[in-house]
Amino acid sequence: MPEDSMDKPNIVTCTAPVNIAVVKYWGKRNEELILPINSSLSVTLHQDQLKTTTTVATSRSFQEDRIWLNGKEEDITHPRLQSCLREIRRLARKRRNDGDPAMDSTGLSHKVHICSVNNFPTAAGLASSAAGFACLVYTLARVFGVEGELSVIARQGSGSACRSIYGGFVQWIMGQKDDGKDSLAQQVEPETHWPELRILVLVASAERKPVGSTSGMQTSVQTSRLLKHRAESVVPGRMEEMIKAVRRKDFAAFAELTMKDSNQFHATCLDTYPPIFYLNYVSQQIINVVHRYNRHYRETRLAYTFDAGPNAVIFTLQQHVPEFVQVVQHFFPPETNGGQFIKGLPVNPAAITEELKQAVGLEPMPKGISYIISTKAGPGPCVVTDPTQHLLRSDGLPKETV
Amino acid sequence: MPEDSMDKPNIVTCTAPVNIAVVKYWGKRNEELILPINSSLSVTLHQDQLKTTTTVATSRSFQEDRIWLNGKEEDITHPRLQSCLREIRRLARKRRNDGDPAMDSTGLSHKVHICSVNNFPTAAGLASSAAGFACLVYTLARVFGVEGELSVIARQGSGSACRSIYGGFVQWIMGQKDDGKDSLAQQVEPETHWPELRILVLVASAERKPVGSTSGMQTSVQTSRLLKHRAESVVPGRMEEMIKAVRRKDFAAFAELTMKDSNQFHATCLDTYPPIFYLNYVSQQIINVVHRYNRHYRETRLAYTFDAGPNAVIFTLQQHVPEFVQVVQHFFPPETNGGQFIKGLPVNPAAITEELKQAVGLEPMPKGISYIISTKAGPGPCVVTDPTQHLLRSDGLPKETV
Repeated sequence: MPEDSMDKPNIVTCTAPVNIAVVKYWGKRNEELILPINSSLSVTLHQDQLKTTTTVATSRSFQEDRIWLNGKEEDITHPRLQSCLREIRRLARKRRNDGDPAMDSTGLSHKVHICSVNNFPTAAGLASSAAGFACLVYTLARVFGVEGELSVIARQGSGSACRSIYGGFVQWIMGQKDDGKDSLAQQVEPETHWPELRILVLVASAERKPVGSTSGMQTSVQTSRLLKHRAESVVPGRMEEMIKAVRRKDFAAFAELTMKDSNQFHATCLDTYPPIFYLNYVSQQIINVVHRYNRHYRETRLAYTFDAGPNAVIFTLQQHVPEFVQVVQHFFPPETNGGQFIKGLPVNPAAITEELKQAVGLEPMPKGISYIISTKAGPGPCVVTDPTQHLLRSDGLPKETV
Repeated sequence: MPEDSMDKPNIVTCTAPVNIAVVKYWGKRNEELILPINSSLSVTLHQDQLKTTTTVATSRSFQEDRIWLNGKEEDITHPRLQSCLREIRRLARKRRNDGDPAMDSTGLSHKVHICSVNNFPTAAGLASSAAGFACLVYTLARVFGVEGELSVIARQGSGSACRSIYGGFVQWIMGQKDDGKDSLAQQVEPETHWPELRILVLVASAERKPVGSTSGMQTSVQTSRLLKHRAESVVPGRMEEMIKAVRRKDFAAFAELTMKDSNQFHATCLDTYPPIFYLNYVSQQIINVVHRYNRHYRETRLAYTFDAGPNAVIFTLQQHVPEFVQVVQHFFPPETNGGQFIKGLPVNPAAITEELKQAVGLEPMPKGISYIISTKAGPGPCVVTDPTQHLLRSDGLPKETV
């Protein structure tokens, strides 16, 4: 191999999705390995609307590991980043030492340059760390030729990132082992299983940054008696029921479990001392709208779920999307001078009846919701084959600053 | 006895206090007898600020049982009213049949007229039913010469009414029996035990009527997994700790248990399906103010508790009242054209430091709180000896319409 080709970096670009939990993860039994106190289950959102793109380059000429996130160089010594880098390199070395002939060992000692961007604003308050760490681990694995259980490595970057390693409906099995080897994600059903399912992210006009999930769940584990009971006695049964509901495509069962589990998670936040509030007045009103809408139709057509922030994620079936979006626009009238209120999958216009308006019976709250992202379940991480999409140049520096 | 004196009604007037639970009652195991799923503990508030006054008259000439509440005649056939009337008459008959010579049996067959008023607006959202039923039962007992465990009877009017039968610090022991005979209130300490303790009711500007407690707790019992765990596994230990804290006058322990229990009660409301929200944005901010104030002083000087409504009840020690009231006035500036902002026990003016303001660090919320009632722990029900205070005339009709 000529000298100059040895200096050319090995560059790989991948994308990974965001996921939204319908059985919530809240609380670690091991902070360093990120082992949870209960299993959880999520839906992977489609990358056409929400994704992270990561390029990893390795080259003999790189002096040190470096990382750029959304156009800004960040500290590579962050412990969770280091966990992921260390684990991937460990697996690569193991594979080389095991004598795998497919393993190209040249890059193993090389430093990496990492560049990652989201196609959605961080301000949207979506759990970007899940997509980010899933994408990082998936891309590093491609670069170093590592195969095997990547969710275990992504988990050590950010707990919920392990679920973004798969598409569709994904469970994170809490595991029992102290080393966390059995705390991993598994696909329950692929994204093609339930094509009618639609997901609407109602992006709230967040006023303040809420308590971060890492410190929040620490305080909850330390102080909430209800969290312990939830983890030990409620979630195991709920996981079974949720998997059944997903497999059967039983929307009413799926929706009710989703709402109950979201509420129980926020209940444990309130049982934390001092209490943590993630649901604000707009969230409470969205919850009321959903229950009144379902009651009006005497059928569970909508479900809400809220993570550690004010955004609502709504699940419904395709045929109910236009009417519900109209309900949102009616009760949370958007700013007139804003951009598009509905982003993502197109939503047909619809009318709503006076009866429905009265059944919801809410005082309209202008500007309570900034915009809606209309999406559905989607696939897991993907390799981007088009080299023009790399985020790093052949000299290993970012193509542009965002 | 001359005929005309036989026609004169027997009139008794009594007063009874409001109480505020610091270990909350939420959930019945028997709806009709009002038997709770857990024990609870409350502080009886002083009647100088908050009380119900009830006059009961009996006379041979009355044609039927009648009741007037706050100036308006109400339906005497209300099942819970009937429970109280039936139980008192049953005890009176029992005592007569047991041959108690002190028992005047003449009134036993007479109809009763009942007239009751509160010295605080119902709009204040305070649990007026506790004071109301305690006062009714206490007054009826005087009229019919009944002694013994009145809290068991008051409980059948409104659960928390049993605690208003005593002054000071009162526990409602849940009991085990199916007939509810052992589900009764007991004084833990009298009101004189902890004279420095002060209570501030922060009356919130309530926008809407929240879910009533009777139906709310029914739904919680039916749907909340966390409520069952709380009742069975958390409250028993908390009752013991709370009784110890009260006996030792350990404010920090009392305050922390009070806040944790309030939060856990509201957590179980959120775990109810559909969820119940009693804490609004103002309540959340008051909670934040209290925790930040305590953190600023590195000492638990304040506690909050919230019942099934938006009012906050604050516990603190006498010496901290002026500063805290100033904090409330600063962050929740009152309406300028309103009446008195502070009612009840006088509060000296105080200044607050810039450091404290910054430690609380809240955007001021004008009109979030309508007014403050400044009070302390007080005695149980009392007989009013001054006959000019009777609410019924000698013909058995109300003296005036409120």
